[in-house]
Amino acid sequence: MTETRLNLALIGTGRIGRVHAGNIAKMSGARLVGIADVNQSSARECAAANGVTRVTSEYRELLNSEGVDAVVVCSSTDTHTSIIEDAARAGKHVFCEKPIDFDLRRIDGALAAVDAAGVRLQIGFNRRFDANHQRVRRAVADGEVGEPHLLHIISRDPSPPPAEYIKVSGGMFLDMTIHDFDMARFLMGSEVSEVYVSAEVRVDPEIGKLGDVDTAVTLLKFENGAIGTIDNSRQAVYGYDQRVEVFGSRGSVRTENQFPSATTISDDHSVRRDLPLNFFMDRYRESFAAEMASFVDAVLEGRQTLVTGRDARAPVVLGLAAQRSHDEHRPVRPEEVDI
Amino acid sequence: MTETRLNLALIGTGRIGRVHAGNIAKMSGARLVGIADVNQSSARECAAANGVTRVTSEYRELLNSEGVDAVVVCSSTDTHTSIIEDAARAGKHVFCEKPIDFDLRRIDGALAAVDAAGVRLQIGFNRRFDANHQRVRRAVADGEVGEPHLLHIISRDPSPPPAEYIKVSGGMFLDMTIHDFDMARFLMGSEVSEVYVSAEVRVDPEIGKLGDVDTAVTLLKFENGAIGTIDNSRQAVYGYDQRVEVFGSRGSVRTENQFPSATTISDDHSVRRDLPLNFFMDRYRESFAAEMASFVDAVLEGRQTLVTGRDARAPVVLGLAAQRSHDEHRPVRPEEVDI
Amino acid sequence: MTETRLNLALIGTGRIGRVHAGNIAKMSGARLVGIADVNQSSARECAAANGVTRVTSEYRELLNSEGVDAVVVCSSTDTHTSIIEDAARAGKHVFCEKPIDFDLRRIDGALAAVDAAGVRLQIGFNRRFDANHQRVRRAVADGEVGEPHLLHIISRDPSPPPAEYIKVSGGMFLDMTIHDFDMARFLMGSEVSEVYVSAEVRVDPEIGKLGDVDTAVTLLKFENGAIGTIDNSRQAVYGYDQRVEVFGSRGSVRTENQFPSATTISDDHSVRRDLPLNFFMDRYRESFAAEMASFVDAVLEGRQTLVTGRDARAPVVLGLAAQRSHDEHRPVRPEEVDI
Amino acid sequence: MTETRLNLALIGTGRIGRVHAGNIAKMSGARLVGIADVNQSSARECAAANGVTRVTSEYRELLNSEGVDAVVVCSSTDTHTSIIEDAARAGKHVFCEKPIDFDLRRIDGALAAVDAAGVRLQIGFNRRFDANHQRVRRAVADGEVGEPHLLHIISRDPSPPPAEYIKVSGGMFLDMTIHDFDMARFLMGSEVSEVYVSAEVRVDPEIGKLGDVDTAVTLLKFENGAIGTIDNSRQAVYGYDQRVEVFGSRGSVRTENQFPSATTISDDHSVRRDLPLNFFMDRYRESFAAEMASFVDAVLEGRQTLVTGRDARAPVVLGLAAQRSHDEHRPVRPEEVDI
Repeated sequence: MTETRLNLALIGTGRIGRVHAGNIAKMSGARLVGIADVNQSSARECAAANGVTRVTSEYRELLNSEGVDAVVVCSSTDTHTSIIEDAARAGKHVFCEKPIDFDLRRIDGALAAVDAAGVRLQIGFNRRFDANHQRVRRAVADGEVGEPHLLHIISRDPSPPPAEYIKVSGGMFLDMTIHDFDMARFLMGSEVSEVYVSAEVRVDPEIGKLGDVDTAVTLLKFENGAIGTIDNSRQAVYGYDQRVEVFGSRGSVRTENQFPSATTISDDHSVRRDLPLNFFMDRYRESFAAEMASFVDAVLEGRQTLVTGRDARAPVVLGLAAQRSHDEHRPVRPEEVDI
Repeated sequence: MTETRLNLALIGTGRIGRVHAGNIAKMSGARLVGIADVNQSSARECAAANGVTRVTSEYRELLNSEGVDAVVVCSSTDTHTSIIEDAARAGKHVFCEKPIDFDLRRIDGALAAVDAAGVRLQIGFNRRFDANHQRVRRAVADGEVGEPHLLHIISRDPSPPPAEYIKVSGGMFLDMTIHDFDMARFLMGSEVSEVYVSAEVRVDPEIGKLGDVDTAVTLLKFENGAIGTIDNSRQAVYGYDQRVEVFGSRGSVRTENQFPSATTISDDHSVRRDLPLNFFMDRYRESFAAEMASFVDAVLEGRQTLVTGRDARAPVVLGLAAQRSHDEHRPVRPEEVDI
Repeated sequence: MTETRLNLALIGTGRIGRVHAGNIAKMSGARLVGIADVNQSSARECAAANGVTRVTSEYRELLNSEGVDAVVVCSSTDTHTSIIEDAARAGKHVFCEKPIDFDLRRIDGALAAVDAAGVRLQIGFNRRFDANHQRVRRAVADGEVGEPHLLHIISRDPSPPPAEYIKVSGGMFLDMTIHDFDMARFLMGSEVSEVYVSAEVRVDPEIGKLGDVDTAVTLLKFENGAIGTIDNSRQAVYGYDQRVEVFGSRGSVRTENQFPSATTISDDHSVRRDLPLNFFMDRYRESFAAEMASFVDAVLEGRQTLVTGRDARAPVVLGLAAQRSHDEHRPVRPEEVDI
Repeated sequence: MTETRLNLALIGTGRIGRVHAGNIAKMSGARLVGIADVNQSSARECAAANGVTRVTSEYRELLNSEGVDAVVVCSSTDTHTSIIEDAARAGKHVFCEKPIDFDLRRIDGALAAVDAAGVRLQIGFNRRFDANHQRVRRAVADGEVGEPHLLHIISRDPSPPPAEYIKVSGGMFLDMTIHDFDMARFLMGSEVSEVYVSAEVRVDPEIGKLGDVDTAVTLLKFENGAIGTIDNSRQAVYGYDQRVEVFGSRGSVRTENQFPSATTISDDHSVRRDLPLNFFMDRYRESFAAEMASFVDAVLEGRQTLVTGRDARAPVVLGLAAQRSHDEHRPVRPEEVDI
């Protein structure tokens, strides 16, 4: 780590990997120095677009390089924990896309490796870095709304993923709600002590045939006594719907969706505005840049990242609890599904 | 019932009775012809304010009068069913404040008497007649949002009632959530098939000492497959918070709170507006007038009222189910608590 | 004036007369005791609807009655000043619909009669009593926005009146902008020292053929140094558009239109709400009731009305100045058109 | 111009120059290849931050380089026309910050040089590229609001510039309103045929002592018959206030300010949100990037830029007309001040 610039290597050059590559390229405090992907043509394309010369199909090569300070793990979920372990042993800091894994034992193995090596780990829960969510968190943390009593998270996708994706997604609670579990912990600053799920197949019967659901409300009880709900749908025809509200003893804070512009049109039918942003890459564009900047700063300044290994693990436990609550039709406490 | 004017008698002259008296006085299709209250000074005061000459402490006198077509029952809840039965036997139509009663057997007795007499009965679920709720119901009924998948009701009072009231209220679910159970049935046009409650004492420990709760989320499953939540708090410091959202296959419809004006002030601290209306009499002023007009029209035109005996009973069942869910910490189906 | 109830007689039973009759009927502090209209069938109809027994075609009969404390003048504009003079001489207080007249000499005659008799006069500039406008006025008067620098009034009708009306209207500035001149004086608490008009025929060529305009911006200079604009159109296809903004040294206050409900619908085309209220009787319903209540209170309590004779005259002067500015294509000071 | 990448040189490395440098650095279709500034330390700093190696104090060196396709002129206003002429003669395309100049003869000389050389010229009216303004323009151009009748532009700065700046600014109309004159022409797609100004010193007496104003309303008449207003203040204490509205025969389109987040907080005092963005660099961040991308695309694709030489000149004429209207207190037509 020469000067104050962090040398990063990217592992995995799919959609999200390229977003991170582009953001790193614009940062003054970081430099992308290597790219690994088993798909070599994808790796080369991504490298060319970002002025990176070192390209490999074997990520371990990058881990062995002295010129690499940290890795950004954007490969498929099933490779996350082993790459984290390898990186930690090589003394590299790790930014890893969510979810870290669905298996708690494997997660614990990876986190132990990180601890043993004393490297930094940050998980890609980018929504924490969104301006709206930051403002809500600040209102809660600063006591602007007093003691929190109620939390509501609405989190609806514009359209369901293809069946092929659903099959390997781990189910709606581990694929989609996991973001909201993280958001719930982040906004409230308190752990979830119980989960109850009510879920249905309402959007697409094919999803039901695959054993999954597409519409759900997850009820949360927090250790601080607050109650929360998470509203999920795989299909909001008007676009990406992401809103939160925290209600407390001294008031309430809530957010609205993000629109392409603040323009309103009145005609003889209605007063209307264009639909909110429809694609998570547009909606959360700035949060992706902010989370990477935050990771780079944390490593450079030698302090804890804002999304830790514990933050990687807890939502997986809640996702497993949610699945069991759905299966057994009863409230479930996290420790019932924890190992 | 001479001409097309309905002659009404009022039984009970407390706050809500006086609201109805005032609204009737302004209607061209109705006339307030008698007032009964065991508190004679209250009855006389209300009569004077509305130009009514016939005043009695004994409501049965009014039921025996040929000049009375219908009664408006605003006495205490424990008197509702017996007055309804008396009125029905006397051939008088009945408008009765909610809740009709907390005892299902007594409710069934009153509804049987109404059916036997062939008179009309309307229950004072005034919120159905609010412009916002009417618009949401229309959007759902007309298919503007497609098949409903999710419902959210936020229903928070500005401040908790006194302990004396809490003691006799029947508990939060029968006192406060009962309105929202009615709203849920009204907006969705579907019956609730299961209830799960998560509730806490967060506002005032005194409420907890009385065995009641002050903060709750009630999760509903509907027969049409939709999922709903009701968010209740006894204390929203910013005022009366009443919002609903129905999300469906073709879109979403939602309402905002009612403000005293549509004025915004920007200064060097914030862009702000004054607090929403703080008192249910202000917030729902027009809905009280509209529900009475609707009752009068239904009777004059000889058709079913818009809030029937069945609508009086169903929310009580749901309130009992909610209480049991809270007590037993598990999802409860309405038939478990029905007789 | 027995007790604390004001006995009012209504002169003129057109649309606005009936609105006032209905509002008076609902007031506890006033009583409608007589109705006059040369159109006797209209007078009788209005009387029947409001429980008034005394009906005449000759308003002077009512002026001569001891049972009448005040008159509400809703007859055609050309009769206003003579009725005011007659009423004043008879010692009756007067509520008179706007405009008082278009002729400054006649106006001065009427105001002199009012002064000589020592009766109260209030002019029907109802918009002053609207909750939005009251809130803006309060923000300005209380210094919430500091010293006022800029004022904007948007005042657009849903559709133009018929040609017959345009012909006798006195022109757009005296018919439509006159309300906004009053609003400008009310909101700013300062007199207008200069007017400049830019006006066009954009909505309907027929209006142009009658020598009038249908689209205008009127620029105002105030004695306090502030600058204002009034935006008028005879046709806003989306409904009645009435918004104001006052910008000052410490901030800005502005109002939005009034909607039938606070309901928003999101579908795959837009996020929209229903059109704002389309009819001035709906938009300003409460302000009509409030202005009459204010008049009754002022008389009963023996204090100045909130819209005085001076407030009746000033907007007429400004309307004449606006017309001259338009005709001569130059800024005009009020004293140029005053007598 | 090898491949499809445009080689740009930057002249002037003040605040706005650095914004352009940073945006160019992020573009795939352009490359910053040289930087000129008489302030050599500023030039070197800017070069280092953007990975540019060629730095000079003499911009003509860059004009003589074959490796430069176009220049971005961000030097002081008084140097604009001569640099444009030099660049045009050297066959370089030009992006020039606004205003091009205050002297119409010098402007015409520069435009003639551009025409003679056949190079592209774009003026830095960045607000045209803002998502809100683009949406309004599209609504007008596509007929969504029908024939435009009225235009309102509100354009208020958070705080006045220092006296030193005011002295050389050319006056409020040429310094501040010039942006709004461009916006007016852009949004309406019609030329201004007459200007009338009402202006005052309300914010700071020092500005008045310098012979300038700080608060103004400029009334516009358009060739298409529409009427417009521009509201300017040097000081809006709540932040940068930039809103527009176009009202037409079929409806109205309007924009709101840009806020740092869409978060609302309700407490026992108000329902509020944080202040809008306070700095034009934040408010128009994306429009600066978009205008440069648009310039690069226009040059690469060999088509007309979206802000032409004519667009550079017209607002200066309107600024001069506004100044004369203010001085002579009468409406002024642009041809009166044109040469």
